[in-house]
Amino acid sequence: MNYRIVSYVVGRILQIEAAIFMLPMLVSVIYFGIDGDKAPRAVLAFAVSAAISLAVGLFLTYVLGKNNKLLFAREGFAIVSLAWILMSAVGALPFFISGEIPSYVDALFETVSGFTTTGASILTDVEAMSHGMLFWRSFTHWLGGMGVLVFVMALLPQDTGRNIHIMRAEMPGPIVGKIVPRLSQTAKILYVIYAAMTVIEVVLLLFGGMSLFDSIVHSLGTAGTGGFGIKGDSIGGYNAYCQWVITIFMLLFGVNFNLYYLILIKQFKTAIKSTELWVYGAIVFIAGIVISVDISRFYNYFGDSVRHAFFQVASVITTTGYSTCDFNEWTGFSKAILVALMFVGGCAGSTAGGIKISRFIIAIKTVFRDIRKMLHPRSVSSVQFEGKKVDDKTINSVSLYFTFYFIIYLLLFIFISFEPFDFETNFTAVSACFNNIGPGLAGVGPMSSFAGYSDAATVLLTLAMLLGRLEIFPILLLFTPAMWKKK
Amino acid sequence: MNYRIVSYVVGRILQIEAAIFMLPMLVSVIYFGIDGDKAPRAVLAFAVSAAISLAVGLFLTYVLGKNNKLLFAREGFAIVSLAWILMSAVGALPFFISGEIPSYVDALFETVSGFTTTGASILTDVEAMSHGMLFWRSFTHWLGGMGVLVFVMALLPQDTGRNIHIMRAEMPGPIVGKIVPRLSQTAKILYVIYAAMTVIEVVLLLFGGMSLFDSIVHSLGTAGTGGFGIKGDSIGGYNAYCQWVITIFMLLFGVNFNLYYLILIKQFKTAIKSTELWVYGAIVFIAGIVISVDISRFYNYFGDSVRHAFFQVASVITTTGYSTCDFNEWTGFSKAILVALMFVGGCAGSTAGGIKISRFIIAIKTVFRDIRKMLHPRSVSSVQFEGKKVDDKTINSVSLYFTFYFIIYLLLFIFISFEPFDFETNFTAVSACFNNIGPGLAGVGPMSSFAGYSDAATVLLTLAMLLGRLEIFPILLLFTPAMWKKK
Repeated sequence: MNYRIVSYVVGRILQIEAAIFMLPMLVSVIYFGIDGDKAPRAVLAFAVSAAISLAVGLFLTYVLGKNNKLLFAREGFAIVSLAWILMSAVGALPFFISGEIPSYVDALFETVSGFTTTGASILTDVEAMSHGMLFWRSFTHWLGGMGVLVFVMALLPQDTGRNIHIMRAEMPGPIVGKIVPRLSQTAKILYVIYAAMTVIEVVLLLFGGMSLFDSIVHSLGTAGTGGFGIKGDSIGGYNAYCQWVITIFMLLFGVNFNLYYLILIKQFKTAIKSTELWVYGAIVFIAGIVISVDISRFYNYFGDSVRHAFFQVASVITTTGYSTCDFNEWTGFSKAILVALMFVGGCAGSTAGGIKISRFIIAIKTVFRDIRKMLHPRSVSSVQFEGKKVDDKTINSVSLYFTFYFIIYLLLFIFISFEPFDFETNFTAVSACFNNIGPGLAGVGPMSSFAGYSDAATVLLTLAMLLGRLEIFPILLLFTPAMWKKK
Repeated sequence: MNYRIVSYVVGRILQIEAAIFMLPMLVSVIYFGIDGDKAPRAVLAFAVSAAISLAVGLFLTYVLGKNNKLLFAREGFAIVSLAWILMSAVGALPFFISGEIPSYVDALFETVSGFTTTGASILTDVEAMSHGMLFWRSFTHWLGGMGVLVFVMALLPQDTGRNIHIMRAEMPGPIVGKIVPRLSQTAKILYVIYAAMTVIEVVLLLFGGMSLFDSIVHSLGTAGTGGFGIKGDSIGGYNAYCQWVITIFMLLFGVNFNLYYLILIKQFKTAIKSTELWVYGAIVFIAGIVISVDISRFYNYFGDSVRHAFFQVASVITTTGYSTCDFNEWTGFSKAILVALMFVGGCAGSTAGGIKISRFIIAIKTVFRDIRKMLHPRSVSSVQFEGKKVDDKTINSVSLYFTFYFIIYLLLFIFISFEPFDFETNFTAVSACFNNIGPGLAGVGPMSSFAGYSDAATVLLTLAMLLGRLEIFPILLLFTPAMWKKK
């Protein structure tokens, strides 16, 4: 392990985070008159947090670290996991210092929930928070969605040429590719598309009569597929138009961003041929229709069932976690579909969490290949995905991902069961955090919060969110002694 | 697909089943005075079922079938899955004809639950059944445990030399090997060990004051790791000595039978070095101790907690499903451990169900190999298991098994959620059937039954049991059109 480059890059991230704190601080300043005595405290909290972040960052970069450019796979993993942990630890400071979240463990949970775009909250009264804190909460979604290190790459293109190792470790999905040969260029393109789509959503929500602050916050949450709301009933209080806009944008942000780039460079045909896109669309469509019918007796108009069904399907499959109604009250069947969708997740290369549709497609195609092999032992057949042959390494890593996922899930579930909640609450709490969704069912349903969990369980669920967002490996490697050996 | 050999072998199985029906018929005759008018009806039911089984069997073997010895992998899979389905369909007849289980769907569920050694029951009053039927129920466990086709191989050694394809399809675990070069000899050795251990258990239970009938029935259920009891409270009413005997024998039947063969030929050292054995022992020991402590406040004496804890741990990890108490009443933590153990299962090559410990070991070792590869991309490292290098084919099939398992589990869970039960009931009903355990939690807990499920759900759970027992592939292949193509 080359500690110095790891320290160098992680320090950089904290310096950038210090700068980013200026944004929510500005929001707090704007709401000086409105938020009462919370506003000055928030400004102070952001200033102190920025100072700490900057100091630690400079120390890591220039005292402990050195940009010796020796960045390989293991350094990539270390940078990503340590950066995520440190930036969350620092990101939690404003909540804690301002006193708006009195417990640091809770503040850390909330911040990790933000960066990992989970959207699970320990807040019991979100409407009591100051505007600056609410903005910061949602902004963490936006940063975490496309990847914090990808963001740094977009900002600081002069860094070493080996950043692909960082990008591989941070980007979700089984196959990570560059859009264009230069990585910093790829990062920039991704962030420009991402930002443009976010702005379009803000504008469309403004058209629907949503206030500017609400539009921005919800667009940030949609873009990162995060799901932090600013109302007790999430999106339930807004009009049908706004709900549909958010439904559509959740779905759009669950699509592989490479497809948007293809559309930008006018390769529509290649974009439209994406298998993952079609499967994603089909799952959303079928699940939405089936649930619409199943829940129609709960609503006076079928249009309402359709709207609620598609909103919740989009929210769960993209692992956003917004809600327009208490789907806890729906039938067991509709809830089971939502639980299953929690695991499916969005497309690879999107901001969505979960296992990812491409993994399911590759896994199922591998199954069929193996069945063919069983029936015709001497035949040669390969797994095709998006028009290309999937190499054996990828196939194995996909199968292995399911294995990992399964084992870690069981362990998380055993430990969370120390908590005095019912089976459904504990089970869906783990599902919601590990898959970066946000709300679960029963005691952690859309109208409840994670506030009831003990500190130990909160830390466990925080870990689950990080494992889910970074797709297990980087975090697991942190606990591997071989990782830390000096060469 | 060579239909004629498939029909030939499947017909043979039904002929043997006809002969086997004589055994429970004899039991019914013995209990003529005691079971009242149920006894003659049972005798008649077994006779009629035997006649049907024989007729269909002869037709399949000699009219449709032909022993042309062309038996390859696909025929092996077809034989195993069709034999299991047909022999269950016929095995359900006595329950239905005698009227002791009035619905054929329920009778089929009960029979499949027997053969697959699940032990889940739709009976609400098991004590009302006649002795002949109770014996038949438990005898299906014994037959299904070691494998019905393995049994046929032991009986009819003259069959084709290609039976390894059948054995591979029927025996649980990732690696199936012959103990001795001749397969029929292997089958015979396995069954002799199996029968001898069953007899020893009967004797030990008799010593404990259990009646002969009860001893036999419970030993058959333990040997197959099935779990059909004959009392409403399963094993709860018997004394502590008998409960410990059953605990130990459940654990013994969860061990790979190859180890017993090694002990028989005095290769103790090789047997004791088995990794799977040690991991199995360690899991049982740790889970038992942890639960003992966790539930100690429910019992007056710590010895009682220990006994109940180890009994339930042994019962769940070996997927037997007997119980000595209503563990539904335990803490969420202890229940979560049991739920996790449901998935773990026993050792490969035992009569236990579940995913199997060897699969977990190979999977986790593969994880570490891949971590090593990530850190040292150019290093060469292999997965070792039981002192041998595991080939890539096996590694991939293990990972793939988890993937399959996961996807099928999600689908089963979605469909079962049509039923109006709570999350815990539906979730553990699928877990208990798919892993061949028997009881689940809540509405399908150890003191309840599966009687509340609709016919459609009963059929679904029946399918889940077959998928679990035959480890997915053979059943899945039945639905593959390529399987049925003539050459």
